[in-house]
Amino acid sequence: MPSMQPEELDDLYEFAIQLGKDAGRMLLEAAEKRWSGDGMINDYGEGEGGKEHVQKMNSVDLVTKTDEDVERFVKNQILTKYPSHEFIGEESYAKGGSKEYLIKDGPTWCVDPLDGTVNYIHLFPLYCVSIAFLLNGTPIIGIINAPFLSQLFTARSNHGAYLTTATSRHRLPLIRNPIPPLPPNAPTGCIFACEWGKDRRDRPDGNMQRKVETFLDMAAEVGGRGGRGGMVHGIRSLGSATMDLAYTALGSVDVWWEGGCWEWDVAAGICILQEAGGLITHGTPPEDFENAKIESVDLGSRLYLGIRPAGPSADESAREIQERTVREVWRRVRGLDYKRP
Amino acid sequence: MPSMQPEELDDLYEFAIQLGKDAGRMLLEAAEKRWSGDGMINDYGEGEGGKEHVQKMNSVDLVTKTDEDVERFVKNQILTKYPSHEFIGEESYAKGGSKEYLIKDGPTWCVDPLDGTVNYIHLFPLYCVSIAFLLNGTPIIGIINAPFLSQLFTARSNHGAYLTTATSRHRLPLIRNPIPPLPPNAPTGCIFACEWGKDRRDRPDGNMQRKVETFLDMAAEVGGRGGRGGMVHGIRSLGSATMDLAYTALGSVDVWWEGGCWEWDVAAGICILQEAGGLITHGTPPEDFENAKIESVDLGSRLYLGIRPAGPSADESAREIQERTVREVWRRVRGLDYKRP
Repeated sequence: MPSMQPEELDDLYEFAIQLGKDAGRMLLEAAEKRWSGDGMINDYGEGEGGKEHVQKMNSVDLVTKTDEDVERFVKNQILTKYPSHEFIGEESYAKGGSKEYLIKDGPTWCVDPLDGTVNYIHLFPLYCVSIAFLLNGTPIIGIINAPFLSQLFTARSNHGAYLTTATSRHRLPLIRNPIPPLPPNAPTGCIFACEWGKDRRDRPDGNMQRKVETFLDMAAEVGGRGGRGGMVHGIRSLGSATMDLAYTALGSVDVWWEGGCWEWDVAAGICILQEAGGLITHGTPPEDFENAKIESVDLGSRLYLGIRPAGPSADESAREIQERTVREVWRRVRGLDYKRP
Repeated sequence: MPSMQPEELDDLYEFAIQLGKDAGRMLLEAAEKRWSGDGMINDYGEGEGGKEHVQKMNSVDLVTKTDEDVERFVKNQILTKYPSHEFIGEESYAKGGSKEYLIKDGPTWCVDPLDGTVNYIHLFPLYCVSIAFLLNGTPIIGIINAPFLSQLFTARSNHGAYLTTATSRHRLPLIRNPIPPLPPNAPTGCIFACEWGKDRRDRPDGNMQRKVETFLDMAAEVGGRGGRGGMVHGIRSLGSATMDLAYTALGSVDVWWEGGCWEWDVAAGICILQEAGGLITHGTPPEDFENAKIESVDLGSRLYLGIRPAGPSADESAREIQERTVREVWRRVRGLDYKRP
């Protein structure tokens, strides 16, 4: 099995962090062009110059161009420094036609230059770049940078996960003195993050209907919905699977459930979540959901369930608490139909 | 009718901004105590001191205490400087029992010391303080500060709305050279912000069911749901009506629809949205929704529909575009049952 020396990984981690910062800055600079052709306003005045250039393209074209520019930049930086590494990027992949799972054992970068594309089109603040480095198919370095929020999430296997903002730096999860357990009756009391997604076909057993049934089961009062009511504390939809994962690592989201993502959406986030002490497993409940072994999810499975880092309680270990929560979520969620084409 | 001199309002605006900053800092400092009894970590170490004090209270108690502390601080600051002004705060109001609409014509402050309480309990980043100053029942100064995001929204009647972050300052809406119109077939192509709320009773015609029916109509493919499918570009739920409104003023959210808020949740946000050029009207569709006059909503109505600032297109004025969007949303939304108790 391929392996790397710690010094080599030190270097890789530093490089990946800088790459995340640079790519985030590119996203922000491209956004700035849209809100003022002349960069940001400093006072009450408004930027004017360069406006015509931007107005020639519509926002979707501009975003596609930015997505491609950032991917090209990241790919070039990586392959210049590490010519033997594999690079899998959302943009190049998407254009290649096939969406086979291509991640092998060798050193591989898996990159989404822009996650939350719809958010970015609307300049809704929750967009980010996601950069993961994998060895033996496992993400061991993860970087997520949400530049408009000044939130940089970084993790390296066995070295912890961190959030750096404009003014502070935190080890994840945010609350860790001690890390709180999940509620005894989870999902009750939990923040549940989920997304409506792009599949909006109005079919009785389609993904949209299955998602809504799941949302309702998680939301409804205890005892409601034929006993499946989960009475979660809140349902949140941010429009970015990557940010959902980052906020699960932060400890702010207790349960994240999603179908339809690709490996470049989740590789960095899974590394960050696991380094923070979170659990990631299959989004589709196994048949014997009450007893099935809870395994780490395949990166390419497209269906995920993430549980935040938890501390132990008087009666249960952290892992027992997380596994209990997984089963209670599985009890309520529908299997979704997202296959690899 | 009560009126004020411009110089007096200058002073009030500066005071309100400083108050928003100070209150936001209090929220952040109370959060810091939860993630490390000793303030934030600076490097890889973790804070330790003071931890016992915090652990004696659970997170809900801590949040309630912070909510009350911030309200007391804001109220004291206001009544010390402006002893003749009225103060209406979420916390004191809630405890008073009656929830009559109390805003009169005189100078009045309407304050939510902490909006997004559930978010704050979980340290989910989207929480904020909301401070509005009203004259003749109309919010003419609005301040929203989301301290963990370093996002400070400020507006004063006829002076524009602004977002100040840790690194930049923007006049709202963010894109204004020119301000884009809404899509010709809105709500298709729009970002739709909505909340699941606290009413989770599992009843066929309850608020939760009506909300879900509405969400589905907005989400479904065009032609779906018996012709009501709106195929919005994305559905977002942030867990804070105040932040939803702020992001509508930013131009990132196109349509915000919510029931169950109180005047302290929305007074500052409505001022900011209107100053940015947005429209706010009734959340419940009138019977003749295709022709009814589109009026500004009553602040105490608890049911709101907000439309982002829009620029004109070749065929329609900005207001015509917004009104067309209102009617297309009204076509799809259910009336909700939130009365004043």
